[in-house]
Amino acid sequence: MSRQIVLVDPLPRTLDLIMTPAVRRRLEALGELVISEDRPMPDEQIEALLPETILIFGQTALPRARLERAAKLQAVFNVETNFLPNIDYEYCQERGIWVLTPGAAFAPPVAEAALGMAIDLARGITAADRAFRAGAERYGLAGNDDVFRLAGASVGIIGFGDLGRTLRALLQPFRNVVRVYDPWLPEQVITAQDCQRAPLDELLSQSRVIFMLASVTSENQAMLAAREFALMPRGAAFLLLSRAAVVDFPAMLAAVQAGHIKAAVDVFPEEPVAADDPLRSLPGLLLSAHRTGGTRDAFFEIGALAVADAELILRGLPPQLCRRADAATSRRLRSKPVEIS
Amino acid sequence: MSRQIVLVDPLPRTLDLIMTPAVRRRLEALGELVISEDRPMPDEQIEALLPETILIFGQTALPRARLERAAKLQAVFNVETNFLPNIDYEYCQERGIWVLTPGAAFAPPVAEAALGMAIDLARGITAADRAFRAGAERYGLAGNDDVFRLAGASVGIIGFGDLGRTLRALLQPFRNVVRVYDPWLPEQVITAQDCQRAPLDELLSQSRVIFMLASVTSENQAMLAAREFALMPRGAAFLLLSRAAVVDFPAMLAAVQAGHIKAAVDVFPEEPVAADDPLRSLPGLLLSAHRTGGTRDAFFEIGALAVADAELILRGLPPQLCRRADAATSRRLRSKPVEIS
Amino acid sequence: MSRQIVLVDPLPRTLDLIMTPAVRRRLEALGELVISEDRPMPDEQIEALLPETILIFGQTALPRARLERAAKLQAVFNVETNFLPNIDYEYCQERGIWVLTPGAAFAPPVAEAALGMAIDLARGITAADRAFRAGAERYGLAGNDDVFRLAGASVGIIGFGDLGRTLRALLQPFRNVVRVYDPWLPEQVITAQDCQRAPLDELLSQSRVIFMLASVTSENQAMLAAREFALMPRGAAFLLLSRAAVVDFPAMLAAVQAGHIKAAVDVFPEEPVAADDPLRSLPGLLLSAHRTGGTRDAFFEIGALAVADAELILRGLPPQLCRRADAATSRRLRSKPVEIS
Amino acid sequence: MSRQIVLVDPLPRTLDLIMTPAVRRRLEALGELVISEDRPMPDEQIEALLPETILIFGQTALPRARLERAAKLQAVFNVETNFLPNIDYEYCQERGIWVLTPGAAFAPPVAEAALGMAIDLARGITAADRAFRAGAERYGLAGNDDVFRLAGASVGIIGFGDLGRTLRALLQPFRNVVRVYDPWLPEQVITAQDCQRAPLDELLSQSRVIFMLASVTSENQAMLAAREFALMPRGAAFLLLSRAAVVDFPAMLAAVQAGHIKAAVDVFPEEPVAADDPLRSLPGLLLSAHRTGGTRDAFFEIGALAVADAELILRGLPPQLCRRADAATSRRLRSKPVEIS
Repeated sequence: MSRQIVLVDPLPRTLDLIMTPAVRRRLEALGELVISEDRPMPDEQIEALLPETILIFGQTALPRARLERAAKLQAVFNVETNFLPNIDYEYCQERGIWVLTPGAAFAPPVAEAALGMAIDLARGITAADRAFRAGAERYGLAGNDDVFRLAGASVGIIGFGDLGRTLRALLQPFRNVVRVYDPWLPEQVITAQDCQRAPLDELLSQSRVIFMLASVTSENQAMLAAREFALMPRGAAFLLLSRAAVVDFPAMLAAVQAGHIKAAVDVFPEEPVAADDPLRSLPGLLLSAHRTGGTRDAFFEIGALAVADAELILRGLPPQLCRRADAATSRRLRSKPVEIS
Repeated sequence: MSRQIVLVDPLPRTLDLIMTPAVRRRLEALGELVISEDRPMPDEQIEALLPETILIFGQTALPRARLERAAKLQAVFNVETNFLPNIDYEYCQERGIWVLTPGAAFAPPVAEAALGMAIDLARGITAADRAFRAGAERYGLAGNDDVFRLAGASVGIIGFGDLGRTLRALLQPFRNVVRVYDPWLPEQVITAQDCQRAPLDELLSQSRVIFMLASVTSENQAMLAAREFALMPRGAAFLLLSRAAVVDFPAMLAAVQAGHIKAAVDVFPEEPVAADDPLRSLPGLLLSAHRTGGTRDAFFEIGALAVADAELILRGLPPQLCRRADAATSRRLRSKPVEIS
Repeated sequence: MSRQIVLVDPLPRTLDLIMTPAVRRRLEALGELVISEDRPMPDEQIEALLPETILIFGQTALPRARLERAAKLQAVFNVETNFLPNIDYEYCQERGIWVLTPGAAFAPPVAEAALGMAIDLARGITAADRAFRAGAERYGLAGNDDVFRLAGASVGIIGFGDLGRTLRALLQPFRNVVRVYDPWLPEQVITAQDCQRAPLDELLSQSRVIFMLASVTSENQAMLAAREFALMPRGAAFLLLSRAAVVDFPAMLAAVQAGHIKAAVDVFPEEPVAADDPLRSLPGLLLSAHRTGGTRDAFFEIGALAVADAELILRGLPPQLCRRADAATSRRLRSKPVEIS
Repeated sequence: MSRQIVLVDPLPRTLDLIMTPAVRRRLEALGELVISEDRPMPDEQIEALLPETILIFGQTALPRARLERAAKLQAVFNVETNFLPNIDYEYCQERGIWVLTPGAAFAPPVAEAALGMAIDLARGITAADRAFRAGAERYGLAGNDDVFRLAGASVGIIGFGDLGRTLRALLQPFRNVVRVYDPWLPEQVITAQDCQRAPLDELLSQSRVIFMLASVTSENQAMLAAREFALMPRGAAFLLLSRAAVVDFPAMLAAVQAGHIKAAVDVFPEEPVAADDPLRSLPGLLLSAHRTGGTRDAFFEIGALAVADAELILRGLPPQLCRRADAATSRRLRSKPVEIS
């Protein structure tokens, strides 16, 4: 008899991490679950299941040979939210197999933290708490010597995907002029969110608050280096929230050390950061241990988005919530994976 | 010849603090400025000027005897933003002399900081920076053990004047259910801002984030004491931003110490806080030295609001921006000044 | 024994018109109601009640002699929403008697209709329906020859009280540049609503949609005449929603007749309009019989606003919802009543 | 030498209709334009050009045989905004050829007109103008006998694509409860726009204003018939703005004729409507000759969206603005074209 297998191979995630009980029940209604959570699913098991598999949740390697045997496969959900080069994307496209990732799950918590950190840098909240604990607090206007108001400040956003757009919505009541640099987008997407498209140098030199939200690609590593940090206005607030590799990290630290900018940093070249790394004592930094996105609700959202799209796909409808690994992107992925936090 | 004197007696403020050069020029166009900024204006000078005075900017004492001599006086602007009991408010009302204060000047910076601090407590931003500096940071989900999302959290606002309404607008993108307790307001003012009127106990027990924004009156001192802090849900974020006297301060600290709530505190029973006050090392506190309101732009806004209203009044029009010391309020002021930050 | 009389003399309104049963019950809780609804309350009855009257709901004449006998009177609510010159406003001010009117009750329905009518003029909705009924409809692009999009069109608002601000909020999603002319207001009130203050001529010449919302005063009658209509861009949409007297009505009709502008008109010099008035057949007009404000819910809102403020006043608190007849305005009222729809 | 042909075969559109000069210049920069606007491009010309064609703007038939010869083809833009069954969609997908349509171009003008018409039906604007012209107007409250306020009314939206979401944004200031029925969408898309997902019957019976925005598919023809119109509350406003075929048109007219509902209708089973069609004199109808979408700016938007996406595609990036004819949809298209206005 024909089976309808849902292959679940989610490591480093687990189903309990990414699905509430209610969402898991909806997953179970889609087919016969076969789950490997304590270790990656063994090759022989995968091979045995593929001919009856309709959906895959996980990062299972899917070269063409495997896909050719998976005649009933309709969709693959990457639940690490990171398209990997272990899938033959073009063959999936030919076959009409959806390759999807619910990467938008992390946008809301990161955006919320980004706003909090931007207010923090602008108004000196964490620094003032530190001074208070050290007995060096200053009251009233004296304590506001080098602060500025986020309201009305010029803002720059580098990278305007789910995260950038979610953040922009949170900024709406602050009435900022918001410049956006994102070379992958047409102007309409930017102006539709009440932002202005700007060249990178203009954004850097004209913005008092700069959010770095770009994913790493083969083309944008260390796109902000010493020259770019020097372009920022003195006293600017810089927030690094996507991946460390998009900046020249030592150049960023030097700009902070010199007092040219303040920075909030959630991602680092190596994690964990070395115990004796001098950045731990840099006054102009707001330090965050890669924790702006990974809230419990965000992990549950991974499952909620993926299962909702799986339900649509099994009804013959296009997915609505996950990002698609489409032809253009997949071609770039051959050379270098896009990492998306 | 008839003079039109604008009496400026602004201490503890100075004109340079509260007016940009452009606003000062508009003030100078209203009449003949007589200014005392290095000391309170001497009584004999006041007495001499009053018969020709049309406007007063400052906290000059104005008992009935003085007001009777000020036949041309049209308005008094308190630029400390604090109605004092040194004016005969009822006689001003009889005479149609406006007594005004541009207290709304501080609402935007306090609201902005309040939002930043609420995100900070919810997401553990300052605490995580402190842990990172101590070499004790935790990455990813492990670092988010006891955080919650501001988005969607239930919010309570105690005191819904300019500050509360400004804050509410900043919260709009976070889609919270917002309960408001303010016994001076009719329900319409609250529902017009997408909030629900709630009894105090319901607000305290149902809100995960509680903003204390009420001014001190004779009736509300220590309105939140041990019983009220116990009503708050475990892990709630409490923000004290108006005056320390509205809470039982030791009871609040005890609730933080016990780990029942986290708190952001901008106002203290005595300022400066004693060097050896143990609150300086309390982990669950976010400490701020009465600095959320006093930004440079807020002080300039005092002048901008006052001068704009003075211009209207001299044209025979009602003021639009400053708060009025009206009959009802002034009667309460007899016994006890309302303090407004 | 001491009585607490609430004197209700509401003609041309009646209590059933302006209060839901729930609001009426709240009114009854405030004191002992004495009501005259079938005729204006007779003088002798008024005189007899005044010494024990605490609140008046109605348009009762209150010269100084009467007010002096009303020792317990705290507030007068004009429920026609039209301050009349039959009250000694200055004596009320001296005594601290609130004179109030819930004029804001009509702002929401008028604003909603104003938006609908603006879209109607811009997009030709009523005109197209008329053409369709006449068998002269044109399909698709051909039917859109002389229409324009409200979205993005330049907008001008003349008079920026409750109505103008309510309308502005409804326009927010249309992303218009909105110019405001209101000489009674400081710039801050206008910019706080994302509008620009503009001189009248600039507003007229630069706006494709012009809302006339100004109340009549002694100074602004026929403020828009032939010269002003000529300033408007050809094809502009003009909406007259406050009082007919603020425009030179024949000049407005001439501008419509000439095809220079289109207009929506809710108020007329004489109402009802004469049966044979040629305006009834003018194609460029959208005709409305003084009905944008008077919806059932708006009348009920009169009572809701007035009773809520009365409750506050009896608790010794200032009113929050009704407009105050303050010193400056009342002085103007001596010469000429302000009419507010 | 290698040519890069942009094949333009846009009938029934023309380039001047869908592109401003600025957008056309951007199109010309993409390759060598070959245009057929006075007649559909002849087969032999198409065949000759295909091997060097990189982009197609138009509704050219593209069976597999043709596509196989178009080795350099990267994208096809349907500028009628209507996917037709004359393309081998699955082969395009296999090859990674984008098939796109800028259907979102019409959403803003239709949404704007929809809001205007909803206010019109709720407040009786066109009907009151008609009565005024007939000398039968009623003033004030009497003229508002059977109107209701759009603000706060319950709203139902059937079909929640670009148009539904654009409309929903315009409704935001009216604070309606908005129910959405769209079986192609997961709940998250609906709740993200502050709406509630509802079964069709609940939507119909609980909404005072109902917008019918669903495209026609093989499954939803006449989805609203006599039973469904009877479910609507008496006095409801029904707006038919997508395609006539989604309702049982005579049943809709009967519900209007009976006075059970009012309706605004922009689309008809046959267009033009017969000169003697009795619907032309039905009082409860607001008639619009398929003109809510086809404004000049909307046609220009077709070109702006298509050219912007073409620019991205030629840079190797995915399109961002046009709708994709994806695998799932194209499979449905085999049997029956989806029509999208």
